[in-house]
Amino acid sequence: MKQSLFFWSIMLICCFVLIGAAAPDSNSDTPQYTKDNQLVRPDNYRNWIYLSSGLNMNYSPMAGDHDMFTNVFVPQSAYQEFLKSGKWPDKTMFVVEERSAASKGSINKQGHFQTDLMGIGVEVKDAKFPDKWAYFAFGESNKSAEANPKAACWQCHEDHAAVEHSFVQFYPTLKPVAKKLGTYKQAAENPQ
Amino acid sequence: MKQSLFFWSIMLICCFVLIGAAAPDSNSDTPQYTKDNQLVRPDNYRNWIYLSSGLNMNYSPMAGDHDMFTNVFVPQSAYQEFLKSGKWPDKTMFVVEERSAASKGSINKQGHFQTDLMGIGVEVKDAKFPDKWAYFAFGESNKSAEANPKAACWQCHEDHAAVEHSFVQFYPTLKPVAKKLGTYKQAAENPQ
Repeated sequence: MKQSLFFWSIMLICCFVLIGAAAPDSNSDTPQYTKDNQLVRPDNYRNWIYLSSGLNMNYSPMAGDHDMFTNVFVPQSAYQEFLKSGKWPDKTMFVVEERSAASKGSINKQGHFQTDLMGIGVEVKDAKFPDKWAYFAFGESNKSAEANPKAACWQCHEDHAAVEHSFVQFYPTLKPVAKKLGTYKQAAENPQ
Repeated sequence: MKQSLFFWSIMLICCFVLIGAAAPDSNSDTPQYTKDNQLVRPDNYRNWIYLSSGLNMNYSPMAGDHDMFTNVFVPQSAYQEFLKSGKWPDKTMFVVEERSAASKGSINKQGHFQTDLMGIGVEVKDAKFPDKWAYFAFGESNKSAEANPKAACWQCHEDHAAVEHSFVQFYPTLKPVAKKLGTYKQAAENPQ
């Protein structure tokens, strides 16, 4: 009886360990993937380091059809590494959070403030990808996403980002760091 | 000779301890004051939790004369306490960072992105103040500041903030938390 109890206890512990190992952690600061290679939505990015925000930023001369803020976050460990080297370590994730913008509300009468979450985009630097960088779009609630086609984001980041694939030209606290450490592509400020 | 060396070593250690005790820490997550009761500029706020941003927010119908982003940060420990109780612990600091906004630059053709630091405002909840909350304005570089007169900020926060003296109506991730925990003043959304 005692032996049987011991056996089943061990089996139960093994099951928990296996379940734990199989479930990717959505609160990780490094990219987690499902079995079919989709990126798991990072749920804890609001605890990361904030890089900057934009309102209605657009790389096309055509304005969008609604007002939208974008907030960019990066994990603390990747940020600390960037401060030292001006480069992003492998497994860095960036989250760009999209939020609706409102203008009149409560005592605010001018300008814009942030309201509902519209979705997040995630940029990943991971040596496992042939092109090193990959891009994923999440709506309000989907828990995993497959990488976007290369033409959608990768090429623009390759051509126009000031440091590796990151738009440091729009991150005011990191821009002087990258310039000082010699990793800033000045040409990114004056695109052809 | 040995006794004398020992004596002076102890004296030296005492000096270092006294200097350490006298110098307020600008990287603290709680308010630090100079001897004449000025608030020491918090230098590490970009490592805190980001609450939200606005562009050109104004409580007057008159628009400002330049484009400005405002980014709000709060220390991790105060944020965690708010998630549990919907209230801010004593010694909470809020930093509102003011940054210039640019529109055309690099590949951006629409909307606005953030550039140079213009200054920071700091709101402090501290039982040492008769009115519990105090407000301080820092320019680009000054290291300490005295509290603003009560009429400048305190009264507006008292009258219009949704949770205690904080404008949670403009912080989209905290608004549902405060509503759930019963600390949200709904009337703040419809000012008289």
